[in-house]
Amino acid sequence: MTRPARLEPPKTPEPGANFLAEIREQPEALARLLEYRAEFRAVARACAARKPAALRLVGHGSSDAAAAYGVYAFGLLPGWTALRDSISLTVYYGARLDFSRSVVVALSQSGRTPDVISYVERARERGALTVAVTNEPESELARAAEATLPVAAGEERSVAASKTFFNQLGALALLAGAVAGREPEVADGLRRTADLVSDSIPPLEQTVGRLATNFAYVGRMYVIGRGIEFPTAREIALKLTETCRVAAAPLTSTDLSHGPIAALDAMFPVWTIASRDESLPALIEAAARAREAGATLVASGSAAAEVEGAAWHLPAPEAPMPLLSPLLSVVPGQLFAAALAHAKGLDSDRPERLTKVTLAQ
Amino acid sequence: MTRPARLEPPKTPEPGANFLAEIREQPEALARLLEYRAEFRAVARACAARKPAALRLVGHGSSDAAAAYGVYAFGLLPGWTALRDSISLTVYYGARLDFSRSVVVALSQSGRTPDVISYVERARERGALTVAVTNEPESELARAAEATLPVAAGEERSVAASKTFFNQLGALALLAGAVAGREPEVADGLRRTADLVSDSIPPLEQTVGRLATNFAYVGRMYVIGRGIEFPTAREIALKLTETCRVAAAPLTSTDLSHGPIAALDAMFPVWTIASRDESLPALIEAAARAREAGATLVASGSAAAEVEGAAWHLPAPEAPMPLLSPLLSVVPGQLFAAALAHAKGLDSDRPERLTKVTLAQ
Repeated sequence: MTRPARLEPPKTPEPGANFLAEIREQPEALARLLEYRAEFRAVARACAARKPAALRLVGHGSSDAAAAYGVYAFGLLPGWTALRDSISLTVYYGARLDFSRSVVVALSQSGRTPDVISYVERARERGALTVAVTNEPESELARAAEATLPVAAGEERSVAASKTFFNQLGALALLAGAVAGREPEVADGLRRTADLVSDSIPPLEQTVGRLATNFAYVGRMYVIGRGIEFPTAREIALKLTETCRVAAAPLTSTDLSHGPIAALDAMFPVWTIASRDESLPALIEAAARAREAGATLVASGSAAAEVEGAAWHLPAPEAPMPLLSPLLSVVPGQLFAAALAHAKGLDSDRPERLTKVTLAQ
Repeated sequence: MTRPARLEPPKTPEPGANFLAEIREQPEALARLLEYRAEFRAVARACAARKPAALRLVGHGSSDAAAAYGVYAFGLLPGWTALRDSISLTVYYGARLDFSRSVVVALSQSGRTPDVISYVERARERGALTVAVTNEPESELARAAEATLPVAAGEERSVAASKTFFNQLGALALLAGAVAGREPEVADGLRRTADLVSDSIPPLEQTVGRLATNFAYVGRMYVIGRGIEFPTAREIALKLTETCRVAAAPLTSTDLSHGPIAALDAMFPVWTIASRDESLPALIEAAARAREAGATLVASGSAAAEVEGAAWHLPAPEAPMPLLSPLLSVVPGQLFAAALAHAKGLDSDRPERLTKVTLAQ
């Protein structure tokens, strides 16, 4: 006698469980990326051989925040002029730009973002060396580009990206390092960064839970970073917007004084990313102005302790090399977004109206 | 017998009177800029002689929004690769970028923005051709740069910029046109644009008054533009933030679908800039998504009538050439900001905590 087959209902994870699990998985994901060092060195040789006048980065959403990081990675390591290129100039307006001395780095988790694929096709036709950096090496984007580098984050189930963004930063640092002849140093720095992230997560999880309860009714926020932490500010603001439905806008410390400071009040908190580098005094000055305006301050980053008057501190470890600081400073923001979404009863794995692959033009 | 001298109290203008007067003055300011055509042609010849691999634009606040417009002006007319350069890479981090085949265009109304001046000094030392575009031709920025072009907007008394931004767009179009050998066409287009702006202001002023009353309690907004109208979206969002204390963030139509759409609801209105160009279908699609999410839509721009389901229409005339569209589409946003500030009892001439010259790093 056999028991009748029972159809088990599919297990629905807790709301936000994937997002949180994937944030925690980031050190492991980064270690996986480092298995592809040879591939990064090979593509770096091809990039360097091109002697590019411009390295053009394209992507949307979190991939665009990663592209902004690429501007710093390539500017600081090989000293290349890198830019987040306008997709619309090439895809919509048919501008006749000279791509012959360009390298294109196209970022897309899914490899299916339509206008990023169109951009790569046109840039390649016009002579650019095109490199896809994607979590899906069999994707249409990978086929469109001359070379593909893996993000190697593993499947990301949460709609809100975390480990794919984290590994995109790692991939850009590794490529820029290899171009500059400093790949071993960057790879070693990334390995140590993975360990530091591992250690930082448990204490941060304690703090963000308490912070989230206090922020449950916040409707708007600014996230302030300068220099290499501005891309981090973009990514944290995007997480807060999509998972917590907070209108969070990223600003540089200088942007704040050029207008937005006028809008601040006690109901408009400001998240600051204070990292120990040459831009720290500007960040500290901006934080003081925000505080004077009555805003509640959250101080994060390796120099969080130096932000005076902050109501909350979410420190991050100091990075093994300054360029890698964003991989550490994004984590408090990700964990806070996960905790705040949970406190508000929102499912960060499946924010309303979003899909994992965005096909909108 | 002489009458005793009487000390008249200085006349304090109505709150926001300067901002509104200066928005209205824009056509006149643009006509004044066109008196300097020979200067623009001369600087354009020097720029073209450099055969730049990259044209680097820098500025903060409204000048940064104008810099974003410059990317399109130079991309579309001479087909140059133009970028909003990272100031911090050069000023804070001492990155060793190659400036020898670069032209720098530095934008500052006052000519006193500290890190823009530092950037220009370093870029010039390293071999860039540096051009200051400023409303103060005797300023420190003008002295630091090799060439100076006037913004010629006349004194701007309101802290919130309007005519200086407007003329910065005109200046960038004129310079890009002259580099491309199309200066007469651009100058003629600007002259016709000035007339169109003049005609558009009175009917817009009627509409924005009614709209402002309805928006008095709005705390957050998105301003959506694509391609050449994304810089316009940046400027309108900045006006709403600084003069009306609304947390207004600029987004491209594609950005919206990559996260922020999750935050929309009926209390989170969306301003759309719909201009009749190749990016219009993407804008219309984004507007429809925002509408489905329950957001109140404001449709502005030359194709405002094509945005379905908009609660408000603030049309702008079609531009004589597509590149000049932002000069027309920014005006409804400026006038709305002036009206909303008035409705909220805020003084757009003197927003809290802002000064006309921003010396913050």
